[in-house]
Amino acid sequence: MRLEGVLVVDPIDGEYVADVSIEGGKIAYIETVDRNPSALLLPGFIDIHTHGAVGVDFLESSDWKEVERFFSSNGVTTFFPTSVSTSFERMVEFLRKAERSGRFAHLEGPYIAVEKKGAQNAEYIRPATIDEVKELLNYEAFRTITMAPEVNSPDIIELLERRGVRVSLGHSNATYEETLKAYSAGARRITHFPNALRSLHHREVAITGAGFLHDFYLELITDGIHVSKEMVQLIYTIKGCDRIILITDSISATGLDDGEYELGGLRVFVKNGIAKLEDGTLAGSTLKFIDGVKNFRKFTKCDLKCLAKVSSYNAAVHMGLENKGRISKGYDADLLLLDFDLNVIEVYRNGLRIFQSS
Amino acid sequence: MRLEGVLVVDPIDGEYVADVSIEGGKIAYIETVDRNPSALLLPGFIDIHTHGAVGVDFLESSDWKEVERFFSSNGVTTFFPTSVSTSFERMVEFLRKAERSGRFAHLEGPYIAVEKKGAQNAEYIRPATIDEVKELLNYEAFRTITMAPEVNSPDIIELLERRGVRVSLGHSNATYEETLKAYSAGARRITHFPNALRSLHHREVAITGAGFLHDFYLELITDGIHVSKEMVQLIYTIKGCDRIILITDSISATGLDDGEYELGGLRVFVKNGIAKLEDGTLAGSTLKFIDGVKNFRKFTKCDLKCLAKVSSYNAAVHMGLENKGRISKGYDADLLLLDFDLNVIEVYRNGLRIFQSS
Repeated sequence: MRLEGVLVVDPIDGEYVADVSIEGGKIAYIETVDRNPSALLLPGFIDIHTHGAVGVDFLESSDWKEVERFFSSNGVTTFFPTSVSTSFERMVEFLRKAERSGRFAHLEGPYIAVEKKGAQNAEYIRPATIDEVKELLNYEAFRTITMAPEVNSPDIIELLERRGVRVSLGHSNATYEETLKAYSAGARRITHFPNALRSLHHREVAITGAGFLHDFYLELITDGIHVSKEMVQLIYTIKGCDRIILITDSISATGLDDGEYELGGLRVFVKNGIAKLEDGTLAGSTLKFIDGVKNFRKFTKCDLKCLAKVSSYNAAVHMGLENKGRISKGYDADLLLLDFDLNVIEVYRNGLRIFQSS
Repeated sequence: MRLEGVLVVDPIDGEYVADVSIEGGKIAYIETVDRNPSALLLPGFIDIHTHGAVGVDFLESSDWKEVERFFSSNGVTTFFPTSVSTSFERMVEFLRKAERSGRFAHLEGPYIAVEKKGAQNAEYIRPATIDEVKELLNYEAFRTITMAPEVNSPDIIELLERRGVRVSLGHSNATYEETLKAYSAGARRITHFPNALRSLHHREVAITGAGFLHDFYLELITDGIHVSKEMVQLIYTIKGCDRIILITDSISATGLDDGEYELGGLRVFVKNGIAKLEDGTLAGSTLKFIDGVKNFRKFTKCDLKCLAKVSSYNAAVHMGLENKGRISKGYDADLLLLDFDLNVIEVYRNGLRIFQSS
């Protein structure tokens, strides 16, 4: 199969017009051509932080097919089903489901800080134990976890990172020093920055300041609600294109109407697309990945190469997905055809068309 | 007169070894030489925000000679006596004193926000009136003023800037939008950033976020108390060398022992060199300019050229002091001879030696 005369947007090689040939689910070869491009071709989006969509909550439900279809329509070709704080038994059950579906999973909690619980259920929040962590490490699907550094031992972070599980710091009240200890132990990401984190203060810059100053990847929800346009601009100014990872943090209400939903046993009220607990705490998002990408571009005026990094490549590199995130010979043919306003035209996964706009 | 074999540190031309000749109070010529430098030569420091030192408060006292000597010993060749919120009559009296001493003055308040008064006396805080401002504009010494944008009309800011008075935003609870209005009106500086300012929040980045994102000069107190080392690093990362202006914000207690002092009619308690009101609010500093310079270098690891910018050149450019802030032919011979650990050896103003270390 061959995509002809497209503007290839590769996070490393940048933009050029080419014909892209796909064989056996991989990018077989790319020939530059001299012509006006008909559309943009980007690496498929990777969402490493999503709790569900279209009525499906990854923790509650077993049938994830409907969500896959929905995500495809938003340009997502790889996603990490994400849990919330729950019992150990349900975490294991969740990892088994992820394993059966052939997906990597993200555990968000329960080893977080109660003071920064956000929309997580306090009932389940607790420090990690070495026994629980060792048990979780038996599951191949367990690829990343959000933990608060100040309530967990650096030894546990080190063990996880050594075993290939990427530790993301989040739902945390950590000081700058506490954050640096986790950095030294190997943690290299911060979850939905700077939401549910101790704020920057000019005499204690805290985990937020450490995120700015050190070589962390920062997850970013660009729905314009969790983080204002100006804060996105500031994060972009400081971190550049190489250390931002766009996520949706989407919940089951995503793609559905306003109404009442559930997240980790808590009631969530969605009004004008904004999901909140009864007390007004934001409870995930109803963001479609493609809209987050459009917002990021609108807020920062970044170029397309940068957009390919924050929407796909950075997540692939951080998570060790070696065949994903680039449009280059030998990479998986996870590809998005977009028009010049970034509307999704067609989506391919492993060379198969999984979405086409009507 | 001739300073031989010194490492010239110019904010534009950078570092080189030279003999520097001084005639008629100006730098007459500079000859590069091939030899190991004996000392550093920097432009004299410019402190645009100081309330006094060695027992002298610029608002209270008329004899500023003792302070001049003290500041010289810390490398300061130009300083702007700075008031605090007070009555209109006392502001006028203060400007007259500055005029008589041939110095430019900085009015810090009274047109500021009560919620962010810091160590300013609430009794005097009020919005500016056009009549007061017009009256103040009669004084040549009136060169800069700290105001809160949200309590004053942009028209007043515009008038001040048009008449050559640099408006600095400070002691302010302004939102991002309110700050931008003042920026549009011409304000280009923020006072002792980010002290006494509305904090950065990820959904309302406020005046602090505007300071990061827009082309403001930021005054910075690098005593390690007002702003932590990490916050200085973050500000430096975002703003670079061209938009930071080091200040002391020093009060009369500077250079004296711990004890009880006064500032704008409020009692100030100095303990371990830290000046606070009875309620714990920081009340200016007891920082010596040279120590702030040393701290900035230690915190940021910046090069010497950068140090010449933040300690002298940027203030000169911002304040329109055309003959100051550089080591270049024709500039005022306001010069510091420092050893390589940044200790002051000799200080010259207009080519005259005003300090020599014993």
